[in-house]
Amino acid sequence: MSTIRQQASACRDAAQVVAALGSDAKRALLRDMAAALETRSAAVLAANAEDMREAAAKDVQGAMLDRLRLDAARVAGIADALREVAELPDPVGVVTRRETRPNGLSIERVRIPLGVIAMIYEARPNVTADAAALCLMAGNGVILRGGSEAIHSNSAIAAALKSALEAHGVPAAALTLVEDLRRETMIELLQLSDIVDLAIPRGGEGLIRFVAEHARVPVIKHYKGVCHLYVDRTADPALALNLLIDGKTSRPGVCNALETLLVHRDIADAFLPQAVQALRERGVEWRGDERSRALVPDMHAASDDDYAAEFLDLILAVRVVDDLDAAIAHIHRYGSDHTEIIATRDEAAAQRFVQAIRSAVVMVNASSRFSDGGELGLGAEIGISTTRLHAYGPMGAEALTVERFVVRGEGQVRHSQS
Amino acid sequence: MSTIRQQASACRDAAQVVAALGSDAKRALLRDMAAALETRSAAVLAANAEDMREAAAKDVQGAMLDRLRLDAARVAGIADALREVAELPDPVGVVTRRETRPNGLSIERVRIPLGVIAMIYEARPNVTADAAALCLMAGNGVILRGGSEAIHSNSAIAAALKSALEAHGVPAAALTLVEDLRRETMIELLQLSDIVDLAIPRGGEGLIRFVAEHARVPVIKHYKGVCHLYVDRTADPALALNLLIDGKTSRPGVCNALETLLVHRDIADAFLPQAVQALRERGVEWRGDERSRALVPDMHAASDDDYAAEFLDLILAVRVVDDLDAAIAHIHRYGSDHTEIIATRDEAAAQRFVQAIRSAVVMVNASSRFSDGGELGLGAEIGISTTRLHAYGPMGAEALTVERFVVRGEGQVRHSQS
Repeated sequence: MSTIRQQASACRDAAQVVAALGSDAKRALLRDMAAALETRSAAVLAANAEDMREAAAKDVQGAMLDRLRLDAARVAGIADALREVAELPDPVGVVTRRETRPNGLSIERVRIPLGVIAMIYEARPNVTADAAALCLMAGNGVILRGGSEAIHSNSAIAAALKSALEAHGVPAAALTLVEDLRRETMIELLQLSDIVDLAIPRGGEGLIRFVAEHARVPVIKHYKGVCHLYVDRTADPALALNLLIDGKTSRPGVCNALETLLVHRDIADAFLPQAVQALRERGVEWRGDERSRALVPDMHAASDDDYAAEFLDLILAVRVVDDLDAAIAHIHRYGSDHTEIIATRDEAAAQRFVQAIRSAVVMVNASSRFSDGGELGLGAEIGISTTRLHAYGPMGAEALTVERFVVRGEGQVRHSQS
Repeated sequence: MSTIRQQASACRDAAQVVAALGSDAKRALLRDMAAALETRSAAVLAANAEDMREAAAKDVQGAMLDRLRLDAARVAGIADALREVAELPDPVGVVTRRETRPNGLSIERVRIPLGVIAMIYEARPNVTADAAALCLMAGNGVILRGGSEAIHSNSAIAAALKSALEAHGVPAAALTLVEDLRRETMIELLQLSDIVDLAIPRGGEGLIRFVAEHARVPVIKHYKGVCHLYVDRTADPALALNLLIDGKTSRPGVCNALETLLVHRDIADAFLPQAVQALRERGVEWRGDERSRALVPDMHAASDDDYAAEFLDLILAVRVVDDLDAAIAHIHRYGSDHTEIIATRDEAAAQRFVQAIRSAVVMVNASSRFSDGGELGLGAEIGISTTRLHAYGPMGAEALTVERFVVRGEGQVRHSQS
């Protein structure tokens, strides 16, 4: 048996212990994980310093280097996040439906853990703790396969968390960090369909494509967010501008940032020049179609690629459209099923937009930046699914469980023996 | 563009029309599909006769030949099944949760169709109509890829159903029957991850393995049912025997039939010889472990393969176990995550069994034959999922939808601009 199969198999066995823990035991475990992380903060920071040195030696760039960096405050923040997960409602054992059949059988739908979840991710070491906490709170075992750039930080964080597991009688394998980062090992992990119940890739498009290509286990993809704001004919211009500024500039590097603005032609004259000015003042570069550039002549031309791009930067694509249907058609063609917004005062237009758009999150007169598990009331999130199956949109602890059937009878049979 | 990609792409476009249909329109459509099938009954029967001739020429066996055969009553039964689906609750548009956040945002979770569902199946032509009806009722497009042995029947049924689609303004591609049955075409279909939202394989183990191996689209597997009955120390022997007879003999060829009996050693003396006699009278062959054979000396020995087998026949594997934990361990080792039963009068043992067994359906003192969408209150079912994700156990129309987020605000932003 290969090492990764042995590790995964041990995680599956340990997951049965986690699945049997009560809510209070899981909450106590997560709080002790938080405490262990704080106790070992110095070791985590030392390991992180090693990752930072290696990254610097490889000429890693600013934003990526910043995502990798830990300091005492960030470690404390990771510990606090663990404590927040410990306060979430426990999804395991929740009875979602209950029915008594005419033959007297009692039927319940009850949430159980998925089993073993493989998290495949890049860069930010906090994912190691966040993902572990959510998976464990939902009663699962977790296999963490982070990126090579954070391997020392991830190992130190995992070691701290595992120390708490053991103290609670949970086998350490319930939280397994894969330290063999060879691609063939990741591929083998993704093909352990008799052991791994779900793989969740989080990271760049290349990573997600790699996982989707090689996996034989179920995958919930966390793809790019090419989020659209459509400013309808009847939109309140000031409201729409606020949504645009918030969506594009408050944190351009995240998946719920806006990437494309669509403007109804009847409001384009009044809205677009003012919007261009406001966003340029905030450092945003615009890329537009012919009609946008007719209104703002010094705007760059947008290519087809620009409309499909997740810029993750202060760049905005814009198009003037004939009507609501043209906006919907643009989103169907270029969208990523993540989050789309309509700004409108016309309730019928809002309804039609909500009905026609099949993205995970669709909003009326609200900022795309609310497309987030915390903001939408899930508590913590393990990511935002763009797979239209099981969980679509922000995924919290509940999305790491599944409903099954529990049936109780008094000896009922389907075909009488007499 | 290949033919199968063109077909799938047309199905996706048509699925948007289906997704926009209201409940009444879908119900009327399904009723007209039923009527069209009855109107064309003669053509369907003629096509089926051709399949039967070809099957006979290939020396196809009795049970398979029977599954393939249609007559006027069976066609009427298929039409009735369509009318039953038309009466099911419409899952699309159902608001499953509603919340207003402290910032005034209204958050709804709303069910939407999955999109395009590819059904891969064998033998029984009624699946063509049943699967199409459930997929359409849930607002989806459906691509049907049946087996070569039923191709004429499937084509005739699909043609009848499609005639009703057109009359309702739904593009015929919403129901696409793949008539090119080459394996490479099926593989291409299973890899259209930009078009197909879900593949559901139903059939023999070989087919399901093939689909799981080649798919790049999400797959919900409908695997074998190695269903266990555990007769606990405190079981009512008469009740347990009824469950055993019903589970093993009422319809041995289906996935919710019992395959293995586990008996607590304290009750084995009293229960097993009597059970052997009762089932032998009904033609059942027993295969047991050493302890069972000590009680019933003329019993065949069970191999490891017997405990893993879905016999689909009048054969039963049996093992005497030391206690509840040993029964659970056996099921963890040999089970297929389908349906497991405990017969007991001990509520604590029942609780522990329900908690430790992670199969899709777990029952206390009821027959495995109730593990069925209709019996569990779902109305029709498209199959019984053994994939612990999205839908686990019997899958009805609701399992062909997914929840997404609809957010309504009055201009809320996450980071104030001032």
